[in-house]
Amino acid sequence: MYRALRLLARSRPLVRAPAAALASAPGLGGAAVPSFWPPNAARMTPVIKAFGILKRAAAEVNQDYGLDPKIANAIMKAADEVAEGKLNDHFPLVVWQTGSGTQTNMNVNEVISNRAIEMLGGELGSKIPVHPNDHVNKSQSSNDTFPTAMHIAAAIEVHEVLLPGLQKLHDALDAKSKEFAQIIKIGRTHTQDAVPLTLGQEFSGYVQQVKYAMTRIKAAMPRIYELAAGGTAVGTGLNTRIGFAEKVAAKVAALTGLPFVTAPNKFEALAAHDALVELSGAMNTTACSLMKIANDIRFLGSGPRSGLGELILPENEPGSSIMPGKVNPTQCEAMTMVAAQVMGNHVAVTVGGSNGHFELNVFKPMMIKNVLHSARLLGDASVSFTENCVVGIQANTERINKLMNESLMLVTALNPHIGYDKAAKIAKTAHKNGSTLKETAIELGYLTAEQFDEWVKPKDMLGPK
Amino acid sequence: MYRALRLLARSRPLVRAPAAALASAPGLGGAAVPSFWPPNAARMTPVIKAFGILKRAAAEVNQDYGLDPKIANAIMKAADEVAEGKLNDHFPLVVWQTGSGTQTNMNVNEVISNRAIEMLGGELGSKIPVHPNDHVNKSQSSNDTFPTAMHIAAAIEVHEVLLPGLQKLHDALDAKSKEFAQIIKIGRTHTQDAVPLTLGQEFSGYVQQVKYAMTRIKAAMPRIYELAAGGTAVGTGLNTRIGFAEKVAAKVAALTGLPFVTAPNKFEALAAHDALVELSGAMNTTACSLMKIANDIRFLGSGPRSGLGELILPENEPGSSIMPGKVNPTQCEAMTMVAAQVMGNHVAVTVGGSNGHFELNVFKPMMIKNVLHSARLLGDASVSFTENCVVGIQANTERINKLMNESLMLVTALNPHIGYDKAAKIAKTAHKNGSTLKETAIELGYLTAEQFDEWVKPKDMLGPK
Amino acid sequence: MYRALRLLARSRPLVRAPAAALASAPGLGGAAVPSFWPPNAARMTPVIKAFGILKRAAAEVNQDYGLDPKIANAIMKAADEVAEGKLNDHFPLVVWQTGSGTQTNMNVNEVISNRAIEMLGGELGSKIPVHPNDHVNKSQSSNDTFPTAMHIAAAIEVHEVLLPGLQKLHDALDAKSKEFAQIIKIGRTHTQDAVPLTLGQEFSGYVQQVKYAMTRIKAAMPRIYELAAGGTAVGTGLNTRIGFAEKVAAKVAALTGLPFVTAPNKFEALAAHDALVELSGAMNTTACSLMKIANDIRFLGSGPRSGLGELILPENEPGSSIMPGKVNPTQCEAMTMVAAQVMGNHVAVTVGGSNGHFELNVFKPMMIKNVLHSARLLGDASVSFTENCVVGIQANTERINKLMNESLMLVTALNPHIGYDKAAKIAKTAHKNGSTLKETAIELGYLTAEQFDEWVKPKDMLGPK
Amino acid sequence: MYRALRLLARSRPLVRAPAAALASAPGLGGAAVPSFWPPNAARMTPVIKAFGILKRAAAEVNQDYGLDPKIANAIMKAADEVAEGKLNDHFPLVVWQTGSGTQTNMNVNEVISNRAIEMLGGELGSKIPVHPNDHVNKSQSSNDTFPTAMHIAAAIEVHEVLLPGLQKLHDALDAKSKEFAQIIKIGRTHTQDAVPLTLGQEFSGYVQQVKYAMTRIKAAMPRIYELAAGGTAVGTGLNTRIGFAEKVAAKVAALTGLPFVTAPNKFEALAAHDALVELSGAMNTTACSLMKIANDIRFLGSGPRSGLGELILPENEPGSSIMPGKVNPTQCEAMTMVAAQVMGNHVAVTVGGSNGHFELNVFKPMMIKNVLHSARLLGDASVSFTENCVVGIQANTERINKLMNESLMLVTALNPHIGYDKAAKIAKTAHKNGSTLKETAIELGYLTAEQFDEWVKPKDMLGPK
Repeated sequence: MYRALRLLARSRPLVRAPAAALASAPGLGGAAVPSFWPPNAARMTPVIKAFGILKRAAAEVNQDYGLDPKIANAIMKAADEVAEGKLNDHFPLVVWQTGSGTQTNMNVNEVISNRAIEMLGGELGSKIPVHPNDHVNKSQSSNDTFPTAMHIAAAIEVHEVLLPGLQKLHDALDAKSKEFAQIIKIGRTHTQDAVPLTLGQEFSGYVQQVKYAMTRIKAAMPRIYELAAGGTAVGTGLNTRIGFAEKVAAKVAALTGLPFVTAPNKFEALAAHDALVELSGAMNTTACSLMKIANDIRFLGSGPRSGLGELILPENEPGSSIMPGKVNPTQCEAMTMVAAQVMGNHVAVTVGGSNGHFELNVFKPMMIKNVLHSARLLGDASVSFTENCVVGIQANTERINKLMNESLMLVTALNPHIGYDKAAKIAKTAHKNGSTLKETAIELGYLTAEQFDEWVKPKDMLGPK
Repeated sequence: MYRALRLLARSRPLVRAPAAALASAPGLGGAAVPSFWPPNAARMTPVIKAFGILKRAAAEVNQDYGLDPKIANAIMKAADEVAEGKLNDHFPLVVWQTGSGTQTNMNVNEVISNRAIEMLGGELGSKIPVHPNDHVNKSQSSNDTFPTAMHIAAAIEVHEVLLPGLQKLHDALDAKSKEFAQIIKIGRTHTQDAVPLTLGQEFSGYVQQVKYAMTRIKAAMPRIYELAAGGTAVGTGLNTRIGFAEKVAAKVAALTGLPFVTAPNKFEALAAHDALVELSGAMNTTACSLMKIANDIRFLGSGPRSGLGELILPENEPGSSIMPGKVNPTQCEAMTMVAAQVMGNHVAVTVGGSNGHFELNVFKPMMIKNVLHSARLLGDASVSFTENCVVGIQANTERINKLMNESLMLVTALNPHIGYDKAAKIAKTAHKNGSTLKETAIELGYLTAEQFDEWVKPKDMLGPK
Repeated sequence: MYRALRLLARSRPLVRAPAAALASAPGLGGAAVPSFWPPNAARMTPVIKAFGILKRAAAEVNQDYGLDPKIANAIMKAADEVAEGKLNDHFPLVVWQTGSGTQTNMNVNEVISNRAIEMLGGELGSKIPVHPNDHVNKSQSSNDTFPTAMHIAAAIEVHEVLLPGLQKLHDALDAKSKEFAQIIKIGRTHTQDAVPLTLGQEFSGYVQQVKYAMTRIKAAMPRIYELAAGGTAVGTGLNTRIGFAEKVAAKVAALTGLPFVTAPNKFEALAAHDALVELSGAMNTTACSLMKIANDIRFLGSGPRSGLGELILPENEPGSSIMPGKVNPTQCEAMTMVAAQVMGNHVAVTVGGSNGHFELNVFKPMMIKNVLHSARLLGDASVSFTENCVVGIQANTERINKLMNESLMLVTALNPHIGYDKAAKIAKTAHKNGSTLKETAIELGYLTAEQFDEWVKPKDMLGPK
Repeated sequence: MYRALRLLARSRPLVRAPAAALASAPGLGGAAVPSFWPPNAARMTPVIKAFGILKRAAAEVNQDYGLDPKIANAIMKAADEVAEGKLNDHFPLVVWQTGSGTQTNMNVNEVISNRAIEMLGGELGSKIPVHPNDHVNKSQSSNDTFPTAMHIAAAIEVHEVLLPGLQKLHDALDAKSKEFAQIIKIGRTHTQDAVPLTLGQEFSGYVQQVKYAMTRIKAAMPRIYELAAGGTAVGTGLNTRIGFAEKVAAKVAALTGLPFVTAPNKFEALAAHDALVELSGAMNTTACSLMKIANDIRFLGSGPRSGLGELILPENEPGSSIMPGKVNPTQCEAMTMVAAQVMGNHVAVTVGGSNGHFELNVFKPMMIKNVLHSARLLGDASVSFTENCVVGIQANTERINKLMNESLMLVTALNPHIGYDKAAKIAKTAHKNGSTLKETAIELGYLTAEQFDEWVKPKDMLGPK
């Protein structure tokens, strides 16, 4: 059995063993993981799943290279169970271990070895007939398997959580943009009143931001699809076989349906994790986009009386037991908190990514934890924001029209008819008196009500001529 | 019972109720918390504990202001159980909720109300005789209780985890500094060979860094000790009583043994969380210090043959099954990963702290999560690094002496005796030939072996004259 | 003459010499500084000034230890000219040089040496009778002088620019807080309507933030006041004299009027710049505070018709030639841009601060550049924001009253008189109909206009009872 | 003449006018730009150049739409002068102005108008016959021209400075990788001794990083190539002509040779600057890559006696007057300082990018300043690092071989011949005794010198079998 580690959290890889065996294992008296460490985050569940996929792929390839099919098959089955999450309880290891993730790789090797032994009717911990190093880890090293698992995990989270979440948000915003296509409202620049646009146009900007968020994330994926497997300890591929790298990547691609390939340069793939920094950067940009959108929506929905009040946000929970209409934009708040977190995670990834030395970057577990956290947060928050906020947004057309019609900016439309000076005088007088442009224009005797209505048409101000 | 929330994680406050009741509650069919969200981090356990302390203190003060002692006492007992962590299972709420932490406050109110009702033999969920709002939340609002709990939680973590961890590390480094006081070694500037110092002097720099880390954190605490309680909804103290704020702060101080006071300005205390940004900044500086120390130690301990090799680090786990002496500096790696994380957390706190609006900052749960995470990580990592690395560090005196004596920098000591030009010639020749200064000096006929030994004394180069 | 450097910007230290001499110097044919590099920022003018102070102090102390008074005096005079900025043109060196600032120290030594020679009637470049190394740099090293100059420069900028700027802003906000003490307005939490407070109370939160910004910056200064001088190359003080460190610090304190002391541990003072990270952290917190304040002010001043419109901001420039009342909050925009920059600078300082190795941190010029940039930006922006915005802010009392009186939140005041249910019905009906509480209450027959006016008094909602 | 602004720096747009005119202009008595503000950075020279290109393109298109050819031609000529930098002195405006860059756009309009008037023999400041608003700014707004100029400037800097710099660095590293292809050296993982690789392989990792840096930057460009021009004030294109947007983009593309297109959604193009955040993210990843490379090179070149000493770095300046061989890795230091700065700039850009509101992001000047700064720094630093460091790197083959042969890791090669246990015993004994593997192996009687030489061949450990 792998010897007890004395790392940060005194955590250690557990093996699939009866409680009695565990209790007698050296150093296993107390809780393996201190209660503080968030188990799921710390255990890096998606990384474990990715390891299951990788170990299965490696066993298949190793069989091609001569590994006993009985052993290979048992490994594959056990690895599938790891990939399916069935053995999650046997992976107590936290992020704050060795920077190469060695202990997680050893944990995986041992769990698979023991589970395979169990399937084959052998004795747990005997390493017979399935040895954790000689068979499960064959042609591999922690130094190339952990980065491989990082990329697999990141790609899966991006495809299963992040992109679907963004797509859902995109579609909902797009539907709103179309729904609001005819609602003309006042524009705001510098947070100040400006010329009009439609609410649909305003939302189309959000749609574009989310669309490009997906484009950006996809643009980062080609480097994520490159797998380090086959580089072994320092990138040379010592102790592996010619062709192993390519075949493993192909198997992983087949198992996941994602276009994984072998990394063209294994030295870079072990020593640097620029690809994770890049993906984190794409998510950082996404966080900026989503913060902008969520901020706009809460301000446009502010009120009910003393805010902008142009949007009516869904009431998900009573904002107050006494005041009807007080709808706290909680979804916007969750989203903007998520955005701030992703920006912070990105700096952690950046610092880790810049501090690799020689043949190995040893900030791996921390880096992938933050990347996965960001992907999950953005994806989940997008879904929640969509379902609990965006789809239920209504335009407060009465309020929108009122603000629109009261706006002094519309005076611009009078310039060609009565000249700049008179138009300016109308605006200035209206501002001073707190009256409408129309009232003021008539009062000043510059035009009639009919003329005003004919000449001042916001809908003619929505595009180029 | 508080109505089900439809927030990000569809999480909701649970109350202490039999499973049957739970199952019939609206919307409580599925898992309350999606498996991804790291439960402990998400549930913000230290914040819940802090809420227990606060609610207990508030009940005491409310009794002074006329709350029925029977009710007040039941609240106090239930609140104590919350503070002791006995009811943790009833706090499923995650970070990604409303930005004011309202749901957590309501969750606390209901759990305490129900637990108090249970203690008094009433019916769960009846709100009789202990009402969650009217009694548990009396004279309070989410908007002032959550920031109060944030400050209590932060102060406790700092005093129970962060400062003790740093003190332990400080003491261990200080002991090493003294142990190594007589070991003269080569200095390195620009990563290049430089004039000598003692290993003890080198470690004394680390000691100073950790000492000042504690000083910095303590310097941030006065603002953390200020509590928002008494500000209620917008800082005015509407619906509370004159003196309530001061009394609650005094009670919390008595319960925790920490010098809490009421915040001099409640508007600032609700609308801004500069105090958390400040504390996070102190921890960010600490992270820089610890990254420097851990980096130095791993480089000084690099080898065993092809690195600097001046330190022998404890072997916590086999670095390799084949190569004795390969000691991977896993503790340094965990520490530097922690440092990177803390720097990232700091940016998240900064972004949240800068984005408050009007009377309420609504990035509260995210901000306190990151502050607590950083405090816990730095504290725990300091303990682990101390126990598993620092205390076991040994000086490789043989190697240190060898590098020391081979150094060309010692030639400086010959200047007064043979002049700059001859000294420079010795150094240049030795560098060219790969020989020692002594050999070269004798070979060039500038001095004798005895003279060299008398004049070139590294121990005379360790301080001012 | 110091040999030409081939560094990043191919910049080199110039000496005070006639153009002819310059033209014939090796490598001095072209522009010394590429046009891109922002000269002032790059030349780190405040650091040069600080060097002038340090070199003057060192000359005084060196005279105490036996330096020829004639030479010492000439150095002092030349150093004073450096400190006064008279020789700025002779310091072309940019930030992106060696990470220890060696070239800047050498630049200073040579300029002072040549200027002293000139004063004494000697030949420029002859190093006679004032030698740049033997006399100007006596008992010093780049490794301790540059960090000393960094601390002097930072302390001076903090005291001359940053703190006065913040004080001015504090006082202006405080005056506004008092001016607005009687103006009752609606509060906003979650950006939504909430219970009232006074505009003066709202501003008092800003006052507190700026007050604490100064407290935080001052709290960081004790570590900045510690000077590395006397540590020389690696912190041991080799080649300096016992007492030199203390005496230099005392002289610098006397020259600047700031409480500089010698650093208690010179190893830390050379190898780590935690004190700069700490100060940068205090400025980062300040940036968060100022961003919050500037954001609030621009939103409260948004309009003129379709925004919140509670504040009237000074018109510094025409926001638009056609629309009176369009006042773009340009000062708020400059301030929030400055805040974002300071947050970015802080990360640069953090990354540099965490990456020191062994006896010397070699991110010195980059770190001090960012610290000085942040101090200057925050100080200048505070002055500009105060003069061009804060002092001219007017309350739009008509608008404030209107929003206040229309608010549904005031219904809370009716609870004790007509009960929760009727009060809620009033609020709900008013919200539904878009009518006022008063109208609705009367319409529903729950009370009279007189009763409403008597019971609903916002000024009774401004504090605890 | 445009009225004096009272902005942050009290700076104002100057026009091309004789000193007398300037002196009599309102508010033009003092220095236009306070001495602190770094003029070049502050004046955003590349943005001004980009404005020249844009204004020229707009004039051409406006002529198509009917603008008097005489006026259009004069504008084009004046705009060309702006693009060529001939009028730089007339652009004193600093970054810290209004967040939309309005003042810069007005500055450009006036300078071009006046210069065109001058060319046509008119009176400066008369606005006749070339009006700054009606003619130079025709069909434009600050809100769409400034972001257009931002994108043009960023694209030009990327193509003229950043990518060529990286390409140069890539090529030099690639040449070194090939030059070092046969030099076998010890690998290092966890900073500890590991199995061998070639120095060429090690450098190939750096080559790959720089190659991908270029790939990443290019991947961000499609969004940068999208121009906001044609969106005018709020994105609707009010006051412009159908087709104007497309034609201007085509003209800019023709003038620059870069594939600019009109932005598909102008609302996004004004209200968000995600494209700049994205590009900044790509440069942030590049900074991580370059920090890793520069760190490796300085550590591999550390010494000359007490470091790793595998590389000999070019001596650009004397590291020390006394110690030959002390080569301070100043280029690595400049590069790592640049990397830290770029990471900080990225956070500033991120904060600005996330804080846009409604129809306009008002962090524009700050954002583009940081993006341009990063592009320039990375490009220039790459060139300097290449020329002054990379091309001159030599392998210290003697040292490399020595470390290689002393390494205990080579024992791995004996496993197949003498078995794991004996191999381990050799390694352990050699480590304990400080002897070589070969000596120890022979001493223990496990094999002959000939056998050792035959079996232990580092060159067989450089790849898969």
